[in-house]
Order: sequence, then structure tokens, then C-alpha cells
Amino acid sequence: MARTGRPPGGTRNREAILAAAAHQFSKLGYDRSSLRAVATEAGVDQALIAHYFGSKHQLFIAAVEFPPDHEKILPEVLTGDRASIGERLARVVLTLLEDPLARRRLTGLVRASSSEPEAAHMLREFLMREVIGPVAKALGSDEPELRVSVVGSQIIGLMMARYIVELEPLASLPAELVVEMIGPTLQRYLTHPLPLTD
Amino acid sequence: MARTGRPPGGTRNREAILAAAAHQFSKLGYDRSSLRAVATEAGVDQALIAHYFGSKHQLFIAAVEFPPDHEKILPEVLTGDRASIGERLARVVLTLLEDPLARRRLTGLVRASSSEPEAAHMLREFLMREVIGPVAKALGSDEPELRVSVVGSQIIGLMMARYIVELEPLASLPAELVVEMIGPTLQRYLTHPLPLTD
Repeated sequence: MARTGRPPGGTRNREAILAAAAHQFSKLGYDRSSLRAVATEAGVDQALIAHYFGSKHQLFIAAVEFPPDHEKILPEVLTGDRASIGERLARVVLTLLEDPLARRRLTGLVRASSSEPEAAHMLREFLMREVIGPVAKALGSDEPELRVSVVGSQIIGLMMARYIVELEPLASLPAELVVEMIGPTLQRYLTHPLPLTD
Repeated sequence: MARTGRPPGGTRNREAILAAAAHQFSKLGYDRSSLRAVATEAGVDQALIAHYFGSKHQLFIAAVEFPPDHEKILPEVLTGDRASIGERLARVVLTLLEDPLARRRLTGLVRASSSEPEAAHMLREFLMREVIGPVAKALGSDEPELRVSVVGSQIIGLMMARYIVELEPLASLPAELVVEMIGPTLQRYLTHPLPLTD
């Protein structure tokens, strides 16, 4: 039998760190959050955060509950023919969303974002730092942040319409046909001349 | 002083009817819902529903809390040059969303849809019956329902990204520039040849 007064500190501390991290990141954003403040809020030593999660960046990814292999995804999209970047992006998004665990986490984040401002801040911070920033930087187009934020609107909308609201026939369309519908849209947003840059 | 045992029946009955209607429509969908069942659930006479709301259709619109003048919108979009239907649709959507009251109601419906299955059913039913159906019918394109459901994904995503998650710089972009970004996408979804129809 478990000894009283000795709860499983490992799991409890890990959960406390994740909860404090989610709170700090959503309240202050990534840049203004510190591991020191997370440690204080969680009631643990700062060294324990490094022990469990490594860096501040890895703590952020864990707090967002994003699929841990997402860092492989962007290089895959950004490497290759510029004329088909929209199709490649659509394909990795669909591949991710057709995976049940990744879909649950991503739609969970979108669901929460629509009702909890803190979750919306997390999603925004995540998209800005992990997706919009890197893609915009690699893209070499004018107005890169605007382009990628509009790309974000189509991807978030696809998640809502296909997986949450289940609008038909989009909800039942084979993934490859969704790629063919959405890919040229993402391509246009990413690389075509913008009216507003006139 | 108010007499006890005599609550203001008008308001109370109206609210009871709306709550029962929202419940029935979201549980059974529009076609399978009956005014008789709504009346039974609300504990009122069926004639009272007609008195307050008129038809089943008007009760549905009231239960969704959609801006009552939305019926003027679609004819505006569908009348005119087919080559600019995407731009016209983007413009009415943005005009609607820049109005504070309509925006609150529409984003409220989208927010609720992402966490409550009943609200998602209402939103789906509303889009299908009031938007997708009529536009698809008027469009004369192949695969009209598919086209309009993909249009729905971009519009829902715009609402999420611009007004709920507040992704920048899209969130601060002047409405007319949003129309210029989104319009050609809606145009392509509505009228261009689809890869899947090969």
C-alpha cells in the first residue's frame, strides 16, 4: 500500500509544471514568460523543469500538447518546388489531421480557443512562433506574415468545417481530394502577387 | 407590486419556445422537427408559436439568433456577374462581420459550435438550409454542395482567425483588403473546374 503523505511527486510535479506553463504562456506570451515564474507558480525548483522538459521551447510545445514530431513537418513543406508549396502544405496538414491522436489534440486546441481566451492566446502564440514565423522567413515573398495568417484562416476553417461542425460533403471527402481543393488556395496565399502590395 | 403566481407569461413562454426549438432543431434537424413537438416540450399551445414566430422557418431563424435581415443577403450575392460572385460573397460576409451585433451573434454561434455538439448541429443545419442549399441551387456549377461546403470552411476559418483567435496581421487588416484576399478563393471554389470532376 502507498505510504500516506507521500504522493507520487514525479507525476504531480510534471502536471503542476505543465499547468503553470500553460497559464504563463497564455497570459504573457512566449517571450515574456520565464522558467523562473513557471517554477514559482508550480511550486518546484527551476532545475526540475529542465530535468523534465529541457528548454523553454520544449516546455512550450509540451504545454500546447502539440504532436512532438511537428518539427519535421515544416522543413518537408519548405523544401522543394516553390510552385507546389501550397499542395505540400495542404498534404501535411491533412496527413496530420487524419491521424486520430494528432487530430484530437489539434481540434481540442481549436475548440478550446473558441471559448477560452487563454487557449486562443496559446494557439495564436503557437501558430505565430512555430508556423507563421518560420514559414514567412523561409518564403521570401512580400508581406510574409499576412500571407501566412490568411493561410492559417483556411487551415483553422478546414478543421472546424470538416472535423468539428462536420459540414457535408466536405466532411466525408477523401483526404487527397481535400488537398486538391485547398492546395491551390494555400499556394495563392503564399506566393501570388497580392492586390494590397500595389 | 406584482401579483404572486402570475409571472410575465409572454416573455416566459417566448423563451420556453425558443429553448425548446433550439433543442428540437439541434437534436432532430430542421425537417424532422415539428411545431407540435416544440409546443409540447415548451408546455404551450401550438397556436402560440404561430402567434410569436409565424412559420417553422421563422422560428428556426429566431432560434439560431441569426440577423433577421440575412434573407436580403443571398439575392444580393447571387444577382450579377458570375465572374465576381466570390468577391460579392466575401464583401457581404465582411460587411456582416464588421457590424458589432451581427458579429457577436455569428462568432457566438461558431464559438458554441466548437464545444457543444448541439450548437454545431444548429450551425450545420443553418448553413445547409439557408446558405449552402440556396447558393448551390442558384449556382449552376457541378458539385454545388461540395463547392459551398468548402466556401463554408474559408468563411468559418476567417471568423475564427480574424475575430476569435485574432491572428495578426489578418485581425487588423482593413475589411476591403480581406475581401481582396478571400474573394478570389471563394470565386475559385464556386466556379472554377474541380480536379475531382475529371
